[in-house]
Amino acid sequence: MSVSALNPNPIPTPSIQPPDIVRCAYMELIVTDLAKSREFYVDVLGLHVTEEDDEVIYLRSLEEFIHHNLVLRKGPVAAVASFAYRVRTPEDVDVAEAYYKEMGCRTERRAEGFTKGVGDSVRVEDPLGFPYEFFYTVDHVERLTQRYDLYSAGELVRLDHFNQVTPDVPRGRAYLEDLGFRVSEDIKDSDGVTYAAWMHRKDTVHDTALTGGDGPRMHHVAFATHEKHNIIQICDKMGALRISDRIERGPGRHGVSNAFYLYILDPDDHRIEIYTQDYYTGDPDNPTITWDVHDNQRRDWWGNPVVPSWYTEASLVLDLDGNPQPLVARTDSSEMEVTVGADGFSYTRGDETDYKVGSQL
Amino acid sequence: MSVSALNPNPIPTPSIQPPDIVRCAYMELIVTDLAKSREFYVDVLGLHVTEEDDEVIYLRSLEEFIHHNLVLRKGPVAAVASFAYRVRTPEDVDVAEAYYKEMGCRTERRAEGFTKGVGDSVRVEDPLGFPYEFFYTVDHVERLTQRYDLYSAGELVRLDHFNQVTPDVPRGRAYLEDLGFRVSEDIKDSDGVTYAAWMHRKDTVHDTALTGGDGPRMHHVAFATHEKHNIIQICDKMGALRISDRIERGPGRHGVSNAFYLYILDPDDHRIEIYTQDYYTGDPDNPTITWDVHDNQRRDWWGNPVVPSWYTEASLVLDLDGNPQPLVARTDSSEMEVTVGADGFSYTRGDETDYKVGSQL
Amino acid sequence: MSVSALNPNPIPTPSIQPPDIVRCAYMELIVTDLAKSREFYVDVLGLHVTEEDDEVIYLRSLEEFIHHNLVLRKGPVAAVASFAYRVRTPEDVDVAEAYYKEMGCRTERRAEGFTKGVGDSVRVEDPLGFPYEFFYTVDHVERLTQRYDLYSAGELVRLDHFNQVTPDVPRGRAYLEDLGFRVSEDIKDSDGVTYAAWMHRKDTVHDTALTGGDGPRMHHVAFATHEKHNIIQICDKMGALRISDRIERGPGRHGVSNAFYLYILDPDDHRIEIYTQDYYTGDPDNPTITWDVHDNQRRDWWGNPVVPSWYTEASLVLDLDGNPQPLVARTDSSEMEVTVGADGFSYTRGDETDYKVGSQL
Amino acid sequence: MSVSALNPNPIPTPSIQPPDIVRCAYMELIVTDLAKSREFYVDVLGLHVTEEDDEVIYLRSLEEFIHHNLVLRKGPVAAVASFAYRVRTPEDVDVAEAYYKEMGCRTERRAEGFTKGVGDSVRVEDPLGFPYEFFYTVDHVERLTQRYDLYSAGELVRLDHFNQVTPDVPRGRAYLEDLGFRVSEDIKDSDGVTYAAWMHRKDTVHDTALTGGDGPRMHHVAFATHEKHNIIQICDKMGALRISDRIERGPGRHGVSNAFYLYILDPDDHRIEIYTQDYYTGDPDNPTITWDVHDNQRRDWWGNPVVPSWYTEASLVLDLDGNPQPLVARTDSSEMEVTVGADGFSYTRGDETDYKVGSQL
Repeated sequence: MSVSALNPNPIPTPSIQPPDIVRCAYMELIVTDLAKSREFYVDVLGLHVTEEDDEVIYLRSLEEFIHHNLVLRKGPVAAVASFAYRVRTPEDVDVAEAYYKEMGCRTERRAEGFTKGVGDSVRVEDPLGFPYEFFYTVDHVERLTQRYDLYSAGELVRLDHFNQVTPDVPRGRAYLEDLGFRVSEDIKDSDGVTYAAWMHRKDTVHDTALTGGDGPRMHHVAFATHEKHNIIQICDKMGALRISDRIERGPGRHGVSNAFYLYILDPDDHRIEIYTQDYYTGDPDNPTITWDVHDNQRRDWWGNPVVPSWYTEASLVLDLDGNPQPLVARTDSSEMEVTVGADGFSYTRGDETDYKVGSQL
Repeated sequence: MSVSALNPNPIPTPSIQPPDIVRCAYMELIVTDLAKSREFYVDVLGLHVTEEDDEVIYLRSLEEFIHHNLVLRKGPVAAVASFAYRVRTPEDVDVAEAYYKEMGCRTERRAEGFTKGVGDSVRVEDPLGFPYEFFYTVDHVERLTQRYDLYSAGELVRLDHFNQVTPDVPRGRAYLEDLGFRVSEDIKDSDGVTYAAWMHRKDTVHDTALTGGDGPRMHHVAFATHEKHNIIQICDKMGALRISDRIERGPGRHGVSNAFYLYILDPDDHRIEIYTQDYYTGDPDNPTITWDVHDNQRRDWWGNPVVPSWYTEASLVLDLDGNPQPLVARTDSSEMEVTVGADGFSYTRGDETDYKVGSQL
Repeated sequence: MSVSALNPNPIPTPSIQPPDIVRCAYMELIVTDLAKSREFYVDVLGLHVTEEDDEVIYLRSLEEFIHHNLVLRKGPVAAVASFAYRVRTPEDVDVAEAYYKEMGCRTERRAEGFTKGVGDSVRVEDPLGFPYEFFYTVDHVERLTQRYDLYSAGELVRLDHFNQVTPDVPRGRAYLEDLGFRVSEDIKDSDGVTYAAWMHRKDTVHDTALTGGDGPRMHHVAFATHEKHNIIQICDKMGALRISDRIERGPGRHGVSNAFYLYILDPDDHRIEIYTQDYYTGDPDNPTITWDVHDNQRRDWWGNPVVPSWYTEASLVLDLDGNPQPLVARTDSSEMEVTVGADGFSYTRGDETDYKVGSQL
Repeated sequence: MSVSALNPNPIPTPSIQPPDIVRCAYMELIVTDLAKSREFYVDVLGLHVTEEDDEVIYLRSLEEFIHHNLVLRKGPVAAVASFAYRVRTPEDVDVAEAYYKEMGCRTERRAEGFTKGVGDSVRVEDPLGFPYEFFYTVDHVERLTQRYDLYSAGELVRLDHFNQVTPDVPRGRAYLEDLGFRVSEDIKDSDGVTYAAWMHRKDTVHDTALTGGDGPRMHHVAFATHEKHNIIQICDKMGALRISDRIERGPGRHGVSNAFYLYILDPDDHRIEIYTQDYYTGDPDNPTITWDVHDNQRRDWWGNPVVPSWYTEASLVLDLDGNPQPLVARTDSSEMEVTVGADGFSYTRGDETDYKVGSQL
């Protein structure tokens, strides 16, 4: 029985108020070779180890004060075990549990938490098939903000956002708006098809985004740097280590979000974005920006081509038993197909002279 | 009669010492629409106008004290009229004239100079077919180094180098080494084919470079910025102006030269590089670096693909009568063909697992 | 009758919930020479003019979408007419009015707003003597986020915070905490004296701060840049314009807030801070940092001395009739006196070897 | 017998051509606690160890290919044992020896060099009392230019220059001009007193500079970074390590040289400058810039005050027996006295309104 069969379309809005989500807080990744993953996240990217043993490594970014932003857990299949959000109060965990139960979702509550350093939590299989987690209680650890003696040239300072692949973006967006997320930007076409949407709780462009495609899958998880040169250094270092083939896309300037970005791949092909300098979205009437899918500057403001793998590849996600969720195919138009190749097109200005030299068009 | 017929191979070394070349100093470009070119170089790139009229515009970079680094002259065919070098003394102009005459090259001496602001000069049709110029006398103008009130976010501060396309790189290299240039880096293969060479007089990686291809053509002219963010701003501005299709390649980090780079195209498709942070080469035994043509990090340290146009397109150059020089085809292997596509290959580490996702390989 | 006589100490907490403040939104400055001020804010600092006439100029930062962040109004005495906060809903303006009325404060409600581009607003003389304003309704204008064609090398991208001088910091802090602000950092001594406190509504270190001193006065208003080099450019440009004597303090790295900073003075001696890269404070249990007043890195992480004027000078504020508020003297210890000079001291490490060369100690 | 008695004034120009100096190459420092110095130069500043033992540490900057740029040698008295220049050919060492002998200077030639990694060298007690060294032969070591895996956030990439204190600047300048140095900038007053001069061989503003004061002493040795943020990181790291009292002056923008700078003190109070982004000086007629000693932007473009220690403190230098050279007092006006305090003055614009708030005037 497929996920979509389990979950009605559209997803019903629960009768109760949703939990008050503060922000995306951590992701739990299943990795197949813990030593190789440690090398990537600690030695190459410089994330800080809060705690570790032979099975799991807890990592945090420089300015974080909660126990971790990333959990690497050894497992047989590379996948994502949790997209974890912090809520405003301990009671919001109760609210989250009730909220998802009313939607008919499977939930699991653990007073002692699912990971070290985190207390009372609920994990759910959400209507889109993703393992969402909500918690308030967490161990505070040393915030390394002014530990410039530990500051690497490519230092990652904050967890910024998740990005999820789902076949029906409007369906997912409505569910997340009910959950209290607000849309900062989206990509559509003139036929009304939605290709992607960016949604936030904290005052940035997003805590998570929905990218249209076969799902549920995890497209990427993003960490922020202070400045653009920090991202360039990560590229330079990957060149020096002769792993430039793990740079998938970028660096570049996003059209959507206006952030400076880089996409790299970990040893299990989990995609990591390095990201800096989007904008403030905290006002209640923050303007939503809609991009035309054919605008060649939407994904890269400089018109550099998006590599096909970026559209097609993503990580599996696990159900609460730890088994990979089956995929549901996207039936709406594919962004890659409508913008690249024989039947697709993109424009820079909308006139006839604007096709970029060397592009994939 | 072809250029190669006119010029023997190998080019003979003159019996006299070459002129003492200080640095690349300016390029004269023929542009077909002066207003459009002004918009590009002045409004977009922010070069400073020293002088201008209806036929010609004299431009300089922020830290320059000679009259110009770039001359835009209106003409019927987009081309390059001069690659101009400054020499150490007035007498070096005499030396240059004699030196080229001994090689059998056509020369033209003008005591009043070929452009405003420059005095006694000699232009030559060099053995590779390029219009080289040598001068010492030049008007000093305000050096804008500390005019931070004029400093744009993407400010160009120095002319850095020329890049020339020539079919037989070793032949051209030998000629330029005789002329006093020293090689900082080159690209070869295991069969001994040379694909490109970087050659300097001042203490940087190059004043000019030779790129293998049908020539004589001008591959690009490069201006330096202070920092990497200045180059990113130029991309961002071209995005804002909706001319991102004029960004041809980059930004990126070069393997060769280690500089951070960007290639953009002017309204006539003259290619401009924006460049920053190569390294000091002034020691007499500065180590020459040879790159393997199959090393995927040689042209871009991050392994990002070189677009085909970058290999195939270049600007015509003029003879001393103002007519475009005929092209001589490269007969050695093409770098693009040996590194990209069906018969070519590149590696990141030289093992079997290193092909970059999304690359053109 | 003095302000403190008008307002009881401690300030009573109203019985109703406070308005839901989103963020600091704009400041209205009275300037004595509008042309000179325009030169400073527009020509030197590059703020963008939304609207202007002979009496008033409305300015905004690059990424702003509301009508203005700064109002310059011509007047006889340099002062501050409004510290304006945006609230979450139109009803919050009613709440604000009621809230201050219950505290016995004078209020003035204007359905059409006090400035162009802003609708229904209430201004109050708050218990500390400051002219606070609350509004929701505002004209949206073009957000210039991606207008990189307008992006100057020292671009100001957001209004970040206000800073207010008040004699009794704990009294002011309690009032602002009641109003819904949360304290991110403060400066104290071992006797329990509080010298300053930083307080936020949005997810940054502050929307406003209280600095101990004779008050009510406005210490500074701060705008954010994207990166540190943007701030350095502002210094460089002020050097080029030969107004370096209007750089009062910095640039430097704050201990408190961790931001990179610069303080400059406008033609009326209103102090402007340029500020970048503090940290996320949005979690409900965001740790509060308390600094020892004798820690020489609290105000400047590099131990550079604070100039005396920074402690002693500040701008007058107006009552709702437009008259300057009388000052109440600080009776607690002065930060300058306890840290600098004959009777004060600061330490770097707390041992005997740590007095900085050239410092004012 | 004093140095000035030993050396005539003016210093005679030798009859032979001077050696062809390429650049400043390394400094040998005597340090009193090798472990403490190693911590400062390696752990804090990140210089790379080429070789070390219990008595001496050989350090180099990232982009260096010769054996070292800095030698730390354990000794009883903190001092400078050598200002070493690289010359263009092995024969230039002979020339240097003869050149100084003709001036009547004591010289010492060692075919095996004075330090590891350097071959045939001559050291001299120069006419100003400084221990100058000239060598050509040197071991090449790995150039770390693209070792971004080793690239720290405050990476030092090149040795840039020396700075020497001498009582009679014009006398020293004439000697160095005879030796082939060219003056890029100087500081004078309207009475013709010279306070300082900057002199170069390579294409930067200086390889060494003369600062007026009691001498011979070493004012500082300077290393370059790529960008300004690298220098800010060094400050931030020194703050994190609670050694901000070892930041003596800056960061700031120089008027002279236009470079972004920082001065810090090593455990023996040897002064180190961190420096970036001066300008190209390689043209034969590079314009010399003369600054008025009363121009408040000459030393710091932003008008920030120079701390007194920067004027008064400097390191001793050794004679060829390893004994500190006696000092000769400056008799010309002192820059500090004519610009700061009761009898001195500085201006920003030269009018009456331009004294900087908080300055030391």
